[in-house]
Amino acid sequence: MTDLRDQALEYHAQPVPGKISIALTKPAETAHDLALAYSPGVAEPVREIAADPNDAYRYTNKGNLVAVITNGTAILGLGNLGPLASKPVMEGKALLFKRFANIDSIDIEVKHRTPDEFIDTVANIADTFGGINLEDIRAPECFEIEKQLIARCSVPVFHDDQHGTAIVTSAGLLNALEIQGKELCESTIVCLGAGAAAIACMELLIKCGAMREKIYMLDRNGVIHTRRDDLNEYKKLFANNTDKRTLQDVIVEADVFVGVSGPDLLSADDVKLMADKPVIFACSNPDPEIKPELARSARPDVIMGTGRSDYPNQVNNVLCFPFIFRGALDVRASCINDAMKVAAVHALRGLAKEPVPQNVLEAYGAESMTFGPDYVLPKPVDGRLLPRIAKAVAQAAIDTGVAGIAELPSAYAASDT
Amino acid sequence: MTDLRDQALEYHAQPVPGKISIALTKPAETAHDLALAYSPGVAEPVREIAADPNDAYRYTNKGNLVAVITNGTAILGLGNLGPLASKPVMEGKALLFKRFANIDSIDIEVKHRTPDEFIDTVANIADTFGGINLEDIRAPECFEIEKQLIARCSVPVFHDDQHGTAIVTSAGLLNALEIQGKELCESTIVCLGAGAAAIACMELLIKCGAMREKIYMLDRNGVIHTRRDDLNEYKKLFANNTDKRTLQDVIVEADVFVGVSGPDLLSADDVKLMADKPVIFACSNPDPEIKPELARSARPDVIMGTGRSDYPNQVNNVLCFPFIFRGALDVRASCINDAMKVAAVHALRGLAKEPVPQNVLEAYGAESMTFGPDYVLPKPVDGRLLPRIAKAVAQAAIDTGVAGIAELPSAYAASDT
Repeated sequence: MTDLRDQALEYHAQPVPGKISIALTKPAETAHDLALAYSPGVAEPVREIAADPNDAYRYTNKGNLVAVITNGTAILGLGNLGPLASKPVMEGKALLFKRFANIDSIDIEVKHRTPDEFIDTVANIADTFGGINLEDIRAPECFEIEKQLIARCSVPVFHDDQHGTAIVTSAGLLNALEIQGKELCESTIVCLGAGAAAIACMELLIKCGAMREKIYMLDRNGVIHTRRDDLNEYKKLFANNTDKRTLQDVIVEADVFVGVSGPDLLSADDVKLMADKPVIFACSNPDPEIKPELARSARPDVIMGTGRSDYPNQVNNVLCFPFIFRGALDVRASCINDAMKVAAVHALRGLAKEPVPQNVLEAYGAESMTFGPDYVLPKPVDGRLLPRIAKAVAQAAIDTGVAGIAELPSAYAASDT
Repeated sequence: MTDLRDQALEYHAQPVPGKISIALTKPAETAHDLALAYSPGVAEPVREIAADPNDAYRYTNKGNLVAVITNGTAILGLGNLGPLASKPVMEGKALLFKRFANIDSIDIEVKHRTPDEFIDTVANIADTFGGINLEDIRAPECFEIEKQLIARCSVPVFHDDQHGTAIVTSAGLLNALEIQGKELCESTIVCLGAGAAAIACMELLIKCGAMREKIYMLDRNGVIHTRRDDLNEYKKLFANNTDKRTLQDVIVEADVFVGVSGPDLLSADDVKLMADKPVIFACSNPDPEIKPELARSARPDVIMGTGRSDYPNQVNNVLCFPFIFRGALDVRASCINDAMKVAAVHALRGLAKEPVPQNVLEAYGAESMTFGPDYVLPKPVDGRLLPRIAKAVAQAAIDTGVAGIAELPSAYAASDT
């Protein structure tokens, strides 16, 4: 770990501090160049945009620009370290946007006193961008913040910790259940954790077919049930009318375990209590709720996913967020709605069923990868993620009437591979 | 003009919309790269910055990042067209920051109801950046906005329309007066215009030695004098205890005319009334208060400056703002104070007195350029502007105790040419 620490600090510090910079997309050498880029030429696009705000997509970078915005209240697993300390993570997210979807992205760290002040601040600068990726904002404030910002902003607002996690988890779970020969609507699901990611995951699973009454969600005080009086409005939606109180109560005969909590909270004995052919997504990072080798020793028939890259079936948001924004930006969507999220789930799970390109196999030093217990999700380096997910999301935006243009860009037909 | 219009729109639209994009400064190809850039490696710089906020300058791009922020209330000479329409100008400013001083700069357009809301919004996001360039904000709100933001932000806040214009104008005027054999402290100055640039110019000229009582400022209602009751607090500082009421009253025997108003407001007859060897800076853009050829026909002994690149002595903010921020960023200055502005004035005027490099002559197709009536300011393409002004500003920041580091960076010694 010391080695990683040194390497990470060196990587961030040298040869220049940080990870992103600004590049010019237009010539800026001659006096003529500058007369077009700035005064007097720049007055022309100004007048055009003043006459038609949509021309901002034509003459500025708005249409390819996403802000990664945080208040630093829930940085990775490190907690509330404040906005400035979160800057390396936000720059990292901007790096991923560029690397995976050629989206220009800039981090904005916001200090504020009240959630309303955060909302006002973001809403006031939102028109600068084509989309807003909220990041590392703690629950439950993140729910109200996202809801209000969606209502106030004319561009997509997407809290990736919620929905990115939910989309990738849902895609992986649907595939794992298919392999196990189970239907989502008939599956009993235990969700350990009741934060932003947990609640978003369960809400999206329900939109994909899961039954709310078959979900048992647990927070630090145990099972969330209808007789508890300590629940916020978001947890209340998952209050189950049950006498079960502990993880051990609900894990019996459960088909699915989703962990978005902390390390080593699920034991081998717990796993032994689950139904036949269980599915366990232990997403606590870097240390999962149960190590895959331990789960498998308890139940050889399990399909496991984790947040880690060194095990099969990594639940990694980078499998979706760059491509979802790519699709949303390309059709000038005003939001990222449920239909777009579900479309991303199905595009992602569908890709896992197709033959894996040679370059992906090579990147992982693998002879083969085939849809099955150890391959329920595509790999982040799979170049098909971009066209597939972006197209599905863009089409869903058009179909649901939230796109700013009427048809898919022509480039989407060409890139449909 | 149609030709420029078409070229400018084409320039902004093709091959991609806008003028700036994000580039990565670190490798992001392999899984190992990404493990350093994002989870898990990114946790290391997060922890360092949480322990010492100064480490944000070490591990993020904060120290080379300037936000160009506007509300679009005074876009170029086009007026209040709103935040979105100003985006091409703000991107243009970001382009100039990169082109002239290798500063990474991103535009932020802010919508708001009250000036306080604008101030809150900018103050809340300020820590993201190493400096803030305010742009195209109308007077008189711009004065209070800048003042409050300087008080609330820990990084430099600089309204370029005020201070950039003031610095370049002051440098040019001081040189022009020197050539005319006059002292600034003995000169009578007429300032036509009483907006942001006008007031900042006169305030800075006073800091450079001009006498407040020898300045006559005029707004739309004529000379600003002590018996007027329609003056805001900023104009009041220039209320002259005089019976003169019109431009024609005050132009008699004036040594200096500074125009930051509108086209053709100064006539040849007015110019004939000025003192011997007058100096006229007619900065209204694109059409100056008086055309240089007309002024010269009235008074062959005049020294003229304008805002235009096709006449000698262009008063162009790009002669200072990139380099002032460069110096401020390089010593992590907490503000850009008067000493730093005055240092920039003197560095700029000093450079005009030195032999002009061959590449500058070539860029202008000139056989020679020598300090004199047609060359009182350096040219924007002069590569010496960056080291000279940045060093003067950085040294002034250190000398006045507003720098975050104790000594000039070692690179400044090497680049002192």
